Amino acid sequence: MPHASREIRLKSRPVGTPAPDNFELASVSLPDPGPGQILVRNLWMTVDPYMRGRMYDRESYVPPFQIGEPLQGGAVGEVVASNDPAWKAGDLVESFFGWREAFVAPAGAVQKLPAGKAPPQAYLGVLGMPGLTAYAGLLTVGEPKAGETVFVSGGAGAVGSIVAQIAKIKGCTVVATAGSDDKVKWLKGRGVDHAINYKTCGNLLEAVRAAAPNGIDVYFDNVGGEHLEVALELARPFARFAECGMIAQYNDTAPRPGPRNLIYVVGKSLRIQGFIVSTYANQRPQFLADMTQWIGEGKIASEETVEHGIENAPKAFINLFNGGNTGKMLVKLG
Amino acid sequence: MPHASREIRLKSRPVGTPAPDNFELASVSLPDPGPGQILVRNLWMTVDPYMRGRMYDRESYVPPFQIGEPLQGGAVGEVVASNDPAWKAGDLVESFFGWREAFVAPAGAVQKLPAGKAPPQAYLGVLGMPGLTAYAGLLTVGEPKAGETVFVSGGAGAVGSIVAQIAKIKGCTVVATAGSDDKVKWLKGRGVDHAINYKTCGNLLEAVRAAAPNGIDVYFDNVGGEHLEVALELARPFARFAECGMIAQYNDTAPRPGPRNLIYVVGKSLRIQGFIVSTYANQRPQFLADMTQWIGEGKIASEETVEHGIENAPKAFINLFNGGNTGKMLVKLG
Repeated sequence: MPHASREIRLKSRPVGTPAPDNFELASVSLPDPGPGQILVRNLWMTVDPYMRGRMYDRESYVPPFQIGEPLQGGAVGEVVASNDPAWKAGDLVESFFGWREAFVAPAGAVQKLPAGKAPPQAYLGVLGMPGLTAYAGLLTVGEPKAGETVFVSGGAGAVGSIVAQIAKIKGCTVVATAGSDDKVKWLKGRGVDHAINYKTCGNLLEAVRAAAPNGIDVYFDNVGGEHLEVALELARPFARFAECGMIAQYNDTAPRPGPRNLIYVVGKSLRIQGFIVSTYANQRPQFLADMTQWIGEGKIASEETVEHGIENAPKAFINLFNGGNTGKMLVKLG
Repeated sequence: MPHASREIRLKSRPVGTPAPDNFELASVSLPDPGPGQILVRNLWMTVDPYMRGRMYDRESYVPPFQIGEPLQGGAVGEVVASNDPAWKAGDLVESFFGWREAFVAPAGAVQKLPAGKAPPQAYLGVLGMPGLTAYAGLLTVGEPKAGETVFVSGGAGAVGSIVAQIAKIKGCTVVATAGSDDKVKWLKGRGVDHAINYKTCGNLLEAVRAAAPNGIDVYFDNVGGEHLEVALELARPFARFAECGMIAQYNDTAPRPGPRNLIYVVGKSLRIQGFIVSTYANQRPQFLADMTQWIGEGKIASEETVEHGIENAPKAFINLFNGGNTGKMLVKLG
């Protein structure tokens, strides 16, 4: 019995900011699961800025998406039919088979999720890849100490919003930037000491300097560009830069000159360290324990911005680059 | 009884590359040493690229030189007269009272050097600040492992020439750049695997790529500018950049855009770490033990370029930026 599904395919490689016609919606018919396979209907899928990198045809830490093929990414779903004795209908599944409503896959290619411990979409955000990125990036790469000043760009994004809150838990003064007054308000409501709307603050350097008059000890970079230059300017000696992403630059169509003050790295003894979350996969058990506790104590709130329906997944993705999300950007499929 | 000395003062702050008329030679008359003081006649003084930074009127990790005042820097000399019971005429002295032929200072402001263990000027080079810079910067900041590829710019300079040789001792493949065929020849004579004349090689990126077809694991940066961009391009995942200096940029009269490919820091999980030698002062005993052994075994050779007379100290300094030195640039005063 065939099972109807729809999926989003890469129609053409974006040049600059992705546009709707870089994507196409396709209907497919899935077979019954074969031996050792399961049929899963996705409930939620994630869109993340890093996916932009996979749309270029170039070598990187993950292979590029292929034109005409469905995109890939994190998703959570529910088993509809199982041909594997370890799985049954209704089991919750985390997989990398996002950008589609349903899929058939070997049971070994997905992970079982605990039922009832958290909303399933949390495993795509605060309890998933973005949460671990924030946790390991801030604590292991940034190494903040209580009393230090942490500066985070993209502070209202999926990763930045968690970074800002963990930094508060660790006793730091937190300066965060975001792109709207609503995001600034959300950050202040979460106890962030200084939240700056970088689009309306005028001179970003002076705005951050006013918030951190003694300089910054840790910079968690989600943005690159001018933010990175500001952080270099205001860095205190021995500051640590956790380089998570440079979303301001992902759609550049030509190489962008780096910060004009990179030479500070020498005189201020700075450490600028890029990282990929998979490097810290071994921290996952401790991360889940800490994060679950912090959520339970009300110290971490996870904001979500939700689009509905597979047909709106490209829109959700494109909006990542327009500041369209506060917290985790998700697409609800179920 | 007054003692005649001459010293070099900063006459004006250089704009761009330092020129002779930024300096002036002055004759002074020194008093006899007072209680607890010694009179020292310098035998050697050092000129180093970092001194360029102190000629700007700006806050940094050391205060700026003042116009009309004698410059400062490392020197080794001999006690001529002592008014301190712990010192006697003929004792060897290391101090920060360079750029002058003689000085009177409290005995506590200088350090005694062992006699006969090494030529005194070695304590300004291979056994001194440049040697420790190379040692701690390569081994602690760069963390090379045997079999890895180390790329060092300014490879024939005071620091770079030691870095290249220590990297060979540690079992690495070494790619070094330098600015003349003579320097390239010197590097090859020291066992460096690939020495490149960056002034004549044509495309620097392709020249380094040909020498390191599998990429580089450690970049020891003395130069900045194009070299840094090349290193980012060729860096392997998890490469470490020991940012020691950016001599290509010290004389810039306007902020220079950073490398256009800095975004690689994220995707390749790079660590770009600046450092100042004083951070690693506690490694000095182990450094001296290791370096003395390596010199004794013939594994480290220290090349010197020598100017004679205090009046030629500005010329020696200026020549640092013209590629005028192979190994340590020194001024012989005694």
